[in-house]
Amino acid sequence: MISSRLTIALDIMGGDNGPHVTLPAAVKALQQNSNLFVILCGDENIIGDMLGELDPDLTSRIEIQHCSEHVAMDELPSHALRNKKDSSMRRALERVECGDADACVSAGNTGALLAMAYHVLKTISGIDRPALVSALPTEGHHKLFLLDLGANVNCDSETLFQYAVMGSVLAEEVTGVSFPRVALLNVGEEQIKGNDQVKFTAKLLQDAPGINYTGFVEGNDIFTNCADVVVTDGFVGNIALKACEGLAKLVLEEAKRVSNQNLMTKILAKIALPLLRKIYLRVNPDQYNGASLIGLRGIVVKSHGNASSDAFLYAIKEALQEVHRQVPQKIKDKIESVLMERS
Amino acid sequence: MISSRLTIALDIMGGDNGPHVTLPAAVKALQQNSNLFVILCGDENIIGDMLGELDPDLTSRIEIQHCSEHVAMDELPSHALRNKKDSSMRRALERVECGDADACVSAGNTGALLAMAYHVLKTISGIDRPALVSALPTEGHHKLFLLDLGANVNCDSETLFQYAVMGSVLAEEVTGVSFPRVALLNVGEEQIKGNDQVKFTAKLLQDAPGINYTGFVEGNDIFTNCADVVVTDGFVGNIALKACEGLAKLVLEEAKRVSNQNLMTKILAKIALPLLRKIYLRVNPDQYNGASLIGLRGIVVKSHGNASSDAFLYAIKEALQEVHRQVPQKIKDKIESVLMERS
Repeated sequence: MISSRLTIALDIMGGDNGPHVTLPAAVKALQQNSNLFVILCGDENIIGDMLGELDPDLTSRIEIQHCSEHVAMDELPSHALRNKKDSSMRRALERVECGDADACVSAGNTGALLAMAYHVLKTISGIDRPALVSALPTEGHHKLFLLDLGANVNCDSETLFQYAVMGSVLAEEVTGVSFPRVALLNVGEEQIKGNDQVKFTAKLLQDAPGINYTGFVEGNDIFTNCADVVVTDGFVGNIALKACEGLAKLVLEEAKRVSNQNLMTKILAKIALPLLRKIYLRVNPDQYNGASLIGLRGIVVKSHGNASSDAFLYAIKEALQEVHRQVPQKIKDKIESVLMERS
Repeated sequence: MISSRLTIALDIMGGDNGPHVTLPAAVKALQQNSNLFVILCGDENIIGDMLGELDPDLTSRIEIQHCSEHVAMDELPSHALRNKKDSSMRRALERVECGDADACVSAGNTGALLAMAYHVLKTISGIDRPALVSALPTEGHHKLFLLDLGANVNCDSETLFQYAVMGSVLAEEVTGVSFPRVALLNVGEEQIKGNDQVKFTAKLLQDAPGINYTGFVEGNDIFTNCADVVVTDGFVGNIALKACEGLAKLVLEEAKRVSNQNLMTKILAKIALPLLRKIYLRVNPDQYNGASLIGLRGIVVKSHGNASSDAFLYAIKEALQEVHRQVPQKIKDKIESVLMERS
């Protein structure tokens, strides 16, 4: 599919299970994409031991960059930013910044990744703050991009407006939908509903050229085919997505619990559980799909901290897609044209 | 259980299905509570026709208050407040205000109910704005009170502080937990996390006498036994709860969809669906439990717009509980003592 050589820098030490998850995913990605080259950032001894003997074709497409440190999952972002100059996370980002890699993937500490990516890569001109975005599954296997999922918890209307522009570009480039529908998350669909921030953002979007703004949507709409992009601030987006994660977990636990009640429900639950787990995976987008950090002068994909190898592989594929679609360049073009027409 | 006579005013015309849902629930409530008296607010012809012949004991505990209007489900709250003076919703609230009824239950238009209740009943001294609160189910069948669910979308820290006090009283009175754990909803548990509003509220709560403030919790924690009360503003609370509603619906739809794939999944899904529906009901608190409007000088319980008769009956029972526990008086006492100790 993708013809020219692509290079992805991987934070091998990031995530709850580090190289146990990231390395098998890297190897699989190389096997599946003959034009892929990977830079494995992490402890060279661990990586060397765990990789073992590989096919020479794969070995020729691997560079190991030794890093003496890694960012802990519970480390303060400010501490990581100041002190972890030789961490696998930071080095992976730097390889994108200097042009060696086309994108970076990490399953590490989200706050630290946000802080480091912002510091190392900088934002695209016209974009104040990066956003975390993920594609949620909706009815009919449609994709809905929700942002921000927690990169920026103090958003003003101008930032939300920029998020709408970025989301629109991402949806168009990744899913191929032309002129994607962009909606604002609110407590009701009527124009009079909502807080001041969302009402003012609506005004900005109504007047914006080149954005297909369709109005307000409610919380329950994010799992329907109500829009292609739903914009909210990082505080609301993070809490809404995590609440869904909590509910999905409760449903699974509840099914397990009732399975202990009597023989009949035990049998029923045993049969229902695999189905529930399958559904749970599909509706738990954060865990399954990873999230993209957009608005930066480089591509960064965040895989979930407790991602499986399959999920980390999916995050690598997502990064490849974004490279192929030149998402940062497209965002730059779009924001320039929107800002020019507004002024 | 409850010995003295209790009177509940019911908005019979409210909700998607009006008297078809509310009347059977009213009759059941009378049958189950021999000391209950109900004021049925609505169209007397419809109510008379639908009630039909009843046991004289029940008839003697029913008053029908004819109302010439009702508030439409999609009516603007400001319009309803100005124009629907003889609506079933408004009359029910007025019967609480003048002391004829101990509480009011409505499944009608939430925005209109909020506006009318605020206007007719007024807030308790020391409380700026009422809040919508509902008990969520969590692991181990524990109850967690989440507020605000959308009464107030522009909250400042002082309002969130008052919500914490009210939630604490409600949890203590309804569930009997002494010194209930009160947490603030945030994007992380560390003190440095969150937006300015939540950080400042945390400071107010840390210093508050008589409130068992336990810190920040994340979105996924609201379905665990992390706290007895979780406080957030109405914008976040509404969106988080509705997102969960949307996810629960998607899970059900997904189970139905896979049931059409092949014979085996068809059988599996057929077996799993009743279990899923049962779980769905339990984890869809808004629909099942209704929500209380607290902070007012009277008790108002909001049942879901598309509540079933069972759900509306549950809302009546919730109102009876709050009457029995004298929740508004307890909130008044608590906020007075907290404010006195603070000053």
